[in-house]
Amino acid sequence: MGVFKKNGSQTVWFENPPVIISTASVVGPQEGEGPLGKTFDKVFYDTYCDEETWEKAEQRLMLEAMKKALQKANLQEKDIDFMLAGDLLNQIVSANFTASALSIPFLGLYGACSTMYEGMALGAMLIDGGFAARVLVGASSHYSTAERQFRFPTELGVQRPMTAQWTVTGAGAVVLAEKGSGPVITHATIGRVIDMGQADPQDMGAVMAPAAADTIVRHLQDTGRAYDYYDLIYTGDLGTYGKKLADHLLRQQGYDISDRFTDCGILIYSGAQDVHAGGSGCGCSAVVTCGYLIEKLKDGSYKRLLGIGTGSLHSPCSVQQGSTIPGIGHALVIEAR
Amino acid sequence: MGVFKKNGSQTVWFENPPVIISTASVVGPQEGEGPLGKTFDKVFYDTYCDEETWEKAEQRLMLEAMKKALQKANLQEKDIDFMLAGDLLNQIVSANFTASALSIPFLGLYGACSTMYEGMALGAMLIDGGFAARVLVGASSHYSTAERQFRFPTELGVQRPMTAQWTVTGAGAVVLAEKGSGPVITHATIGRVIDMGQADPQDMGAVMAPAAADTIVRHLQDTGRAYDYYDLIYTGDLGTYGKKLADHLLRQQGYDISDRFTDCGILIYSGAQDVHAGGSGCGCSAVVTCGYLIEKLKDGSYKRLLGIGTGSLHSPCSVQQGSTIPGIGHALVIEAR
Repeated sequence: MGVFKKNGSQTVWFENPPVIISTASVVGPQEGEGPLGKTFDKVFYDTYCDEETWEKAEQRLMLEAMKKALQKANLQEKDIDFMLAGDLLNQIVSANFTASALSIPFLGLYGACSTMYEGMALGAMLIDGGFAARVLVGASSHYSTAERQFRFPTELGVQRPMTAQWTVTGAGAVVLAEKGSGPVITHATIGRVIDMGQADPQDMGAVMAPAAADTIVRHLQDTGRAYDYYDLIYTGDLGTYGKKLADHLLRQQGYDISDRFTDCGILIYSGAQDVHAGGSGCGCSAVVTCGYLIEKLKDGSYKRLLGIGTGSLHSPCSVQQGSTIPGIGHALVIEAR
Repeated sequence: MGVFKKNGSQTVWFENPPVIISTASVVGPQEGEGPLGKTFDKVFYDTYCDEETWEKAEQRLMLEAMKKALQKANLQEKDIDFMLAGDLLNQIVSANFTASALSIPFLGLYGACSTMYEGMALGAMLIDGGFAARVLVGASSHYSTAERQFRFPTELGVQRPMTAQWTVTGAGAVVLAEKGSGPVITHATIGRVIDMGQADPQDMGAVMAPAAADTIVRHLQDTGRAYDYYDLIYTGDLGTYGKKLADHLLRQQGYDISDRFTDCGILIYSGAQDVHAGGSGCGCSAVVTCGYLIEKLKDGSYKRLLGIGTGSLHSPCSVQQGSTIPGIGHALVIEAR
């Protein structure tokens, strides 16, 4: 079914666009209280999500999102050919334990906060390539597990700079299928890793903005489309400063997309929630896509979306050893059908 | 080009089997001194590999393996559609920095020590699915980075139990292509995550053996083949105890494959090298495949291989929090052409 569509570009075209037949989103309290609160399937009002540790809470979020996505599609685990998932925790344990609980053939991914988009891109290729009829994709993050792993334990009360972002506590999941009803994925643009020499892990917007801009430009060049082919172009988690920087970098290359450009990290929290530069984490683009954006496609507010999952590819060790931080962005075209 | 080959099984068939047109392996001193030493492209005789830290040494190993694989195929970075890679380090930084240096559209993977086989399986699907003409796949590990991240800093001199394995210092890389000359990948069996309740990170053979056995049985059932269709069946890094356990689990299910069953972790070191249960790490199956096994296919010693990349899916944090350790195994059929 897959037909060779690659033309030396970074973009692949799907001949039979895989269908997003189901999505689910499960979030924590801060996300539930935010402006998109009503678009999520489930809100936990405690960050432990009835578990003993925050790490187990994050696994709970991913497992519930995966099960909810299956349930909404009237499917069981055995109906799924592959599960693709990842998260921010060391050795992607949230995804590993979720895969263990679901017992679906599993491919683990790490794309930092771009993981959901990497997973949907790969899942769509497996389906349109003829290797799967249905794929389950998911990603998660948790504010408290990410803070203590990447920065400081929250109990320390360390002051956060204004460029810092707030890791979304939440998980999103989608079921992609070769047929069915729902929005479709028509193209994927796989990002290159871009390193502009930024080295501050408290300013990830500046790390990811050049990668996001690079992928957007490559996508528009590869497809020969004007940016206004899309009703909305959004990034995963650039936050307020990162989005400004991406806007600037795009204009430098002759692309002013600012009349329809937003960011999941900006959408998910209100200004009153004191999250500084906005949301981040694998869960950020995952829950905003699986909740709000899919809802907007289904109610007809938007017809064509260009979404860029963005990731900051550092580890605490690489930062401590003085390395700069590279970034990545993977784009998907999601259209209402 | 991809044709729907999935039959509700865990195994995918490649209609036009992707070709391994080039492989490369770069290793550290202990691997160079081992019985397979002469099969590797390059041996560093210092574990720092001319870098300042062991983490940078690991990146150097992966970057050199990737470049060598390209060079042996007379290709440049721009000739490659996608790079798929991963490693054991937190946030797969070895792969991220290598992707940054090569500037090829990048998909990051985490499958613990199964990563090379996960990457080759996905890469083969992207090629046979029609999304890429050439894919670069790689994986790395380093004894000293893995010890201090997963267990103890080596400077402490902590005694290792006899079930412990020695993380291979090395990186392997392959170029997969839709056409060309070399061995081909005809099938991939994607593993489920299996958790039998083992919880000791110093006995990873026992974690991975059930997953390896599960994937081997599923592969033979899915393909309807007898085990002796293959000249050799090998696992990634079960080590001596894990291999015995896999042998036992397979016999329990009616499969005695012991006359042609081995393990890359057993092959890579000699008994005199004091590595206890054998080699492990993403680099283990990667360099043994890219060096020794491909050589054996090319010189006609073997015609058909069934290789199972095996991974132990824990993190230091998950172990400290009392979780059990799940395992995974991904199988590939590699045949001489």
